[in-house]
Amino acid sequence: MTIELINTGSELMLGRVLNTHQQWICRVLADRGYTVDRQVAISDESAALVAAVREGLGRADWVITTGGLGPTCDDRTRELVAAMLGRRLEHHPEVEAQIRSFFEGRNRPVPVRTQVEAMVPEGAEVLVNRHGTAPGLALWLDPNPLRPDGRPTWLVMLPGPPRELRPMVLEEVLPRLAKRFPGQEDFVCRTLKTTGLGESYMEERLDGPLKELVDGGMDLGFCARVGEVDVRFVARGPEAARVVAEAERRTRATVGEYIFGADDESLEQVLVREFSGRGLKLALAESCTGGHIANRVTNVPGASSVLLAGFVTYANEAKERSLGVPHALLVEHGAVSEPVARAMAEGARTVTGADYAVSVTGIAGPGGAVPGKPVGTVFIGVAGPAGTVVRRELNAFDRETFKYLTAQQAMSSVLRLAMAGAVPAADGRG
Amino acid sequence: MTIELINTGSELMLGRVLNTHQQWICRVLADRGYTVDRQVAISDESAALVAAVREGLGRADWVITTGGLGPTCDDRTRELVAAMLGRRLEHHPEVEAQIRSFFEGRNRPVPVRTQVEAMVPEGAEVLVNRHGTAPGLALWLDPNPLRPDGRPTWLVMLPGPPRELRPMVLEEVLPRLAKRFPGQEDFVCRTLKTTGLGESYMEERLDGPLKELVDGGMDLGFCARVGEVDVRFVARGPEAARVVAEAERRTRATVGEYIFGADDESLEQVLVREFSGRGLKLALAESCTGGHIANRVTNVPGASSVLLAGFVTYANEAKERSLGVPHALLVEHGAVSEPVARAMAEGARTVTGADYAVSVTGIAGPGGAVPGKPVGTVFIGVAGPAGTVVRRELNAFDRETFKYLTAQQAMSSVLRLAMAGAVPAADGRG
Repeated sequence: MTIELINTGSELMLGRVLNTHQQWICRVLADRGYTVDRQVAISDESAALVAAVREGLGRADWVITTGGLGPTCDDRTRELVAAMLGRRLEHHPEVEAQIRSFFEGRNRPVPVRTQVEAMVPEGAEVLVNRHGTAPGLALWLDPNPLRPDGRPTWLVMLPGPPRELRPMVLEEVLPRLAKRFPGQEDFVCRTLKTTGLGESYMEERLDGPLKELVDGGMDLGFCARVGEVDVRFVARGPEAARVVAEAERRTRATVGEYIFGADDESLEQVLVREFSGRGLKLALAESCTGGHIANRVTNVPGASSVLLAGFVTYANEAKERSLGVPHALLVEHGAVSEPVARAMAEGARTVTGADYAVSVTGIAGPGGAVPGKPVGTVFIGVAGPAGTVVRRELNAFDRETFKYLTAQQAMSSVLRLAMAGAVPAADGRG
Repeated sequence: MTIELINTGSELMLGRVLNTHQQWICRVLADRGYTVDRQVAISDESAALVAAVREGLGRADWVITTGGLGPTCDDRTRELVAAMLGRRLEHHPEVEAQIRSFFEGRNRPVPVRTQVEAMVPEGAEVLVNRHGTAPGLALWLDPNPLRPDGRPTWLVMLPGPPRELRPMVLEEVLPRLAKRFPGQEDFVCRTLKTTGLGESYMEERLDGPLKELVDGGMDLGFCARVGEVDVRFVARGPEAARVVAEAERRTRATVGEYIFGADDESLEQVLVREFSGRGLKLALAESCTGGHIANRVTNVPGASSVLLAGFVTYANEAKERSLGVPHALLVEHGAVSEPVARAMAEGARTVTGADYAVSVTGIAGPGGAVPGKPVGTVFIGVAGPAGTVVRRELNAFDRETFKYLTAQQAMSSVLRLAMAGAVPAADGRG
């Protein structure tokens, strides 16, 4: 079976936004055994859109479009596709009622222009939009007049905004997939998320244990991200699940101490889950990460049962006043130092009454380097029931990468200590 | 002139990486008046690659490919394109010398496989790779045997790694552009960033004032993001700059109070720039946004001169202890209330000595709703030299969207007040 994805939007062709739809849709489908064969992006210009959809429908079993279903003048997918296929647009009262209730639920008047979103091509199935007003539209073209042999094609049109598109794919499109394209080969994809060991070392360690499975046809992939390495197994056929499970078992036996989660789990999700399950409370004292860790932890539903408080103590006065860091310590060692990281973590733990407190103080750059402490220098403190440890890292990257990587190190440090239930005297680095 | 961009790589089609090349190349070219008409992504599979390049060469004046020039078994672009065009691959001693010096400069042995990178299709121009080993390749096909009318096409093949591709485009491709495609029309693209007015309302307001310019050929585009709407003007020809400037003038005259920046500026960049320029200091007291605002503000270089401190006061005890919110207020009104938002903002301002302090307290969901305060309810306080205002919003979205949108409202509130230099008694909403 062949799949073609068509992303519309002049902002794409002008390079004003990243095409995140492509990655997300390709990924969600690949994880279920459906590989997109071709992705095409074009502007909102009518002729380009018609040409791309026509070509896609002329050769693929499934064509997905994104964008162009909204209420403004550059949203033309609905009308152009209907015209291409010779289908009338019909007013759909249920869709209109949904649009109305969307605005009423937010105490806003219904804009006149949104009425066009209630127009549905003859014979199209409506895909409910729970996070916006423009519904998705699906047409099962059987026969497909644009294919020389008339074989059927499923045309699925999705709205552009990611927070509307993503739930629609998961809740409206995927449940219809098995009916439209039954009997796909078994496909299992499993990703183990690791932190603390580089990609090349990871590969060296796993080469031997996984050789037999790779020789037998399993795909082994490594993806290095900032502060993380994903190890990915892909297998197909009736033995796929067994092969991937065996690969996971061997990998955990070899490099288990670096694995913090699987598939799409983030470090902050694991942190909230493990703290929550143990009834532990957390506090954060961030200087150079500037709230990045707090933000990620509070992205996880249930974070409020774990995180007591966070302090973004950029200025030295804030470190003194909010966390009780002694003024003399700041003067003697500087804000970016082992003793200050220690005092920040212990202060945050004392002030909030948390079980564990994490502190971060470093030089994110581009400015701020001092002799002996280049840009990227960071001290990460963890204060817990058994004492405090501080590790020193050098994360010499751009500002946002610095924050992300430092957060990975800080979260994995506190997670490891909390799960071990004790704090060693030192971790051999700090 | 028509331009087609072809990105190759199985990792793209499996959704494992974002296609950053698309945005970057489209943007760099658009800013110089060259708009990419179509972008195609396909896997490393030979048939898919040949089909995509053949189609592109059959219709475009300029075809750019990325990826597939490296030394490994899945790098096939060089060899497949040469075969398609009936050109032999010739050994290129200068390229081999460059590859050799690349490895020698890093004290590493030259891998045998890299020798394939010194093979160049007959008649191709070599584009120097200063950051890697695989050179780019450019072929001026005149006549182009794949176009029915034989019109010429420029085929430019670029390596996949971004830190190799980007300098190659800037230093090797752009200087050759004027020779290949002289006399491009003037092109001006301008984006105004707005917050506080929905896409449909925005278009309704601008319809009249911009009608004449749109009728005259200017492209008007809207891009709805979370809590923001981009309004984009594109014009071509000798009058382009004048037309776009006039569109901007009329738009500012009509919806100026919603415009916070232009082109790639983010709200946090504008905030740091405006506060910094006025010598103003900021403090943040975040409950439901959990450090999201602090994180975004501290992503901006120079934030340390503006942000004195941030407090992530998730727990009530933290609101009392760190910000001095009276216990009785929390008991009487609940943490999500106008008086608590007011006390948080004023507390943060007093404790830190900042000129302005912003507070956020609300219900991010999915749980936490109480009678009269559904999920999404949020109170945003701004305390400044002239007093405190609190606005109430209903941002009924998923957790991350809630945080983002609330942050937009909070940052635009404090920005507006700080730029006005005074705090009105009420903003008419809270």
